[in-house]
Amino acid sequence: MELLDGKRISDEIKGEIATEVEKIKKEGGKIPRLVAILVGHDGASETYVGHKEKSCNQVGFESQVLRFEDTITEVELLQEIEKLNNDPLVDGFIVQMPLPKHIDEQKVIEAIDPRKDVDGFHPINVGRMVIGLPSYISATPDGIIELLRRYKIETSGKHCVVLGRSNIVGRPIANLLSLKAYPGDCTVTVCHSKTPNIKEFTKNADILIVAMGKAEFVTADMVKEGAVVVDVGITRVKSDKTKSGWKLLGDVKFDEVAPKCSYITPVPGGVGPLTIASLLKNTLRAAKKEIYG
Amino acid sequence: MELLDGKRISDEIKGEIATEVEKIKKEGGKIPRLVAILVGHDGASETYVGHKEKSCNQVGFESQVLRFEDTITEVELLQEIEKLNNDPLVDGFIVQMPLPKHIDEQKVIEAIDPRKDVDGFHPINVGRMVIGLPSYISATPDGIIELLRRYKIETSGKHCVVLGRSNIVGRPIANLLSLKAYPGDCTVTVCHSKTPNIKEFTKNADILIVAMGKAEFVTADMVKEGAVVVDVGITRVKSDKTKSGWKLLGDVKFDEVAPKCSYITPVPGGVGPLTIASLLKNTLRAAKKEIYG
Repeated sequence: MELLDGKRISDEIKGEIATEVEKIKKEGGKIPRLVAILVGHDGASETYVGHKEKSCNQVGFESQVLRFEDTITEVELLQEIEKLNNDPLVDGFIVQMPLPKHIDEQKVIEAIDPRKDVDGFHPINVGRMVIGLPSYISATPDGIIELLRRYKIETSGKHCVVLGRSNIVGRPIANLLSLKAYPGDCTVTVCHSKTPNIKEFTKNADILIVAMGKAEFVTADMVKEGAVVVDVGITRVKSDKTKSGWKLLGDVKFDEVAPKCSYITPVPGGVGPLTIASLLKNTLRAAKKEIYG
Repeated sequence: MELLDGKRISDEIKGEIATEVEKIKKEGGKIPRLVAILVGHDGASETYVGHKEKSCNQVGFESQVLRFEDTITEVELLQEIEKLNNDPLVDGFIVQMPLPKHIDEQKVIEAIDPRKDVDGFHPINVGRMVIGLPSYISATPDGIIELLRRYKIETSGKHCVVLGRSNIVGRPIANLLSLKAYPGDCTVTVCHSKTPNIKEFTKNADILIVAMGKAEFVTADMVKEGAVVVDVGITRVKSDKTKSGWKLLGDVKFDEVAPKCSYITPVPGGVGPLTIASLLKNTLRAAKKEIYG
C-alpha cells in the first residue's frame, strides 16, 4: 500500500508554476493575477480565501480579495463581477461560495466570463470538459486527475466507481475518467443516494472515488484487494483524543481499508491540498490564454 | 415483452406540438421557425434535412433550408450563422453535419447562439444539461428519455449500462439518467471500446442502452432476464431477402434478445423516429423562450 500524498504533489505543482512565473517575470511579461470575491464573514470561507491568497504569494502571482458585507444585493454583486470581467489586469477570479440566501449562486456563476472562470463552474467550461475540449476543470476533479497522473496509476480499461453525483466532484470526475485520455479510458459507474446496493459496485472497483460526505462510509468489506482509493470526504467530528477537541474523518474507514489498497489517499493530506494547486494552474492557463485564446 | 414504439411516441409528440402551434396561431402569436443549413450534396444529409422540413410542415412550423455548395469557406459559413443568430424571425437553427473537411465543425457549433441551438450541441447547452439546468438536449438522448417517460418505465435505483461514449449519444444519456429526476436516478455505468469485459456489465443491467455502431453486437447471453433494452445503432447491410437489396440492423441481435426483455426498441422504428420530434420540441421551446428567457 502506498499513500497518495496530495501535499507532496501540490508542492510539486506549485513549484512548477513558480518556475513559470519567474520566467514570465524575467521576460517582462504580465504577472498572473487572481482575484477572490468574499461576501460576508463565514469562518470557513475566510480560511479558504486566506489559503488561496497565501498560495498566490508562494508562486509569485498577484492576488486581491474583494470583501463585501452580506448585505450586498445581487445586482451590486453582478456589477462587481462585470467590472472584473472587463478588467484587463485580472486574469481569473472566483466568487467564494456559499453566498447569502438572497443571492442566486447559479446566476452569479453564469455572470463570470468563461475565460476568467478559473473555478470551472460556468456551464460552458463544464460542457467543454464533458465533450473533451480544453477547459478550466474545477479544483477537486482536477486534483484527482493530477494524483492519478503523477503517481502513474494505470487507468485504461479499469473499472472506476464514483460514489456521489455532485456537480463539483462526482459528476465531473466521472465524465473525465471516461474520456479517451490519460488519466481516463475507464469504464465508469456513478453511484449515489438512490443506489440500493452500493457494495455490489464498490467490491468490483479497480479505482474507487468517494465523495459522499458520509464519515467512514466505506468499510473494508466493500473494497477489492489491490484497489486504488481516493477519498474526497472530509467531516469534522468531536474527539477526546486530540488537543483541539475535534478531528477530521474521510468517507473511507482508513485504518481497515488501507491495508487492502494498492494506493489510498490519507484524510487530511489527500485531495484537499491539491485543490488550491489546481486553482493556481487554471489561473496560469488563463494568464497564458491557453484555452480561449 | 413489449416493443418501445418510437413511431407512435413520435406521432404523439408531434400531435402535442401541432396543438400548441394551433393555439399560438389562434392567439396571433409568432409561428415557430426552424432553419437548416445544408452544405454540399451528401445523400444522407439531404434525406435528413428533407425529413426535418416535412416534419416542420406537419406540426405547422415555418421552415427553411439554406443550401450552400461545399466550396463555401469557413468564414462565409460563420457569417451565415451570425445572420441567423441576429434574425429575430428565426427561433432555432441547425447546421447539418458532416461538413466539408476544410470547415472546423466544433467552431461552427460554438458560433451558434446557444438560445437558438436546437440541436443542443453547444458546450453551454451540454454543460447546463450535465449540471441539471434547463437546456436544449440533443435529439437522440432526448428521444430515449421520452421513450422511457412515456412508457412509464421505472428508472430510480435501476442499474443503467450505456455502451458507447460518444458526445451525441452515450455521454449525454449517461449524464441525464444519473440526474436526480424522472427518468433518472439510475446508477449508470458507461462502457466503451476500452472496456475489456463488456458482458460482465451488460449482464447486470436493468436498463441497457446500446450506441456503439456495431451491428448485432449484443447477444442474448449478454442480457439479463427482464431488462429494458434501447438500441440506438443502425447499420445498413446487404441482404438478398429484401427488394431493395439491403436491410437495417441495430446494435442488438433483436430476434434472440427480445424474448428476454421486458421492453425493447425495434430497429428501425425505435429511437430513430423520436430524434426529429425532439428537434421540433426544442424549436417550440426556443420560440416560447422557455430556457433562456
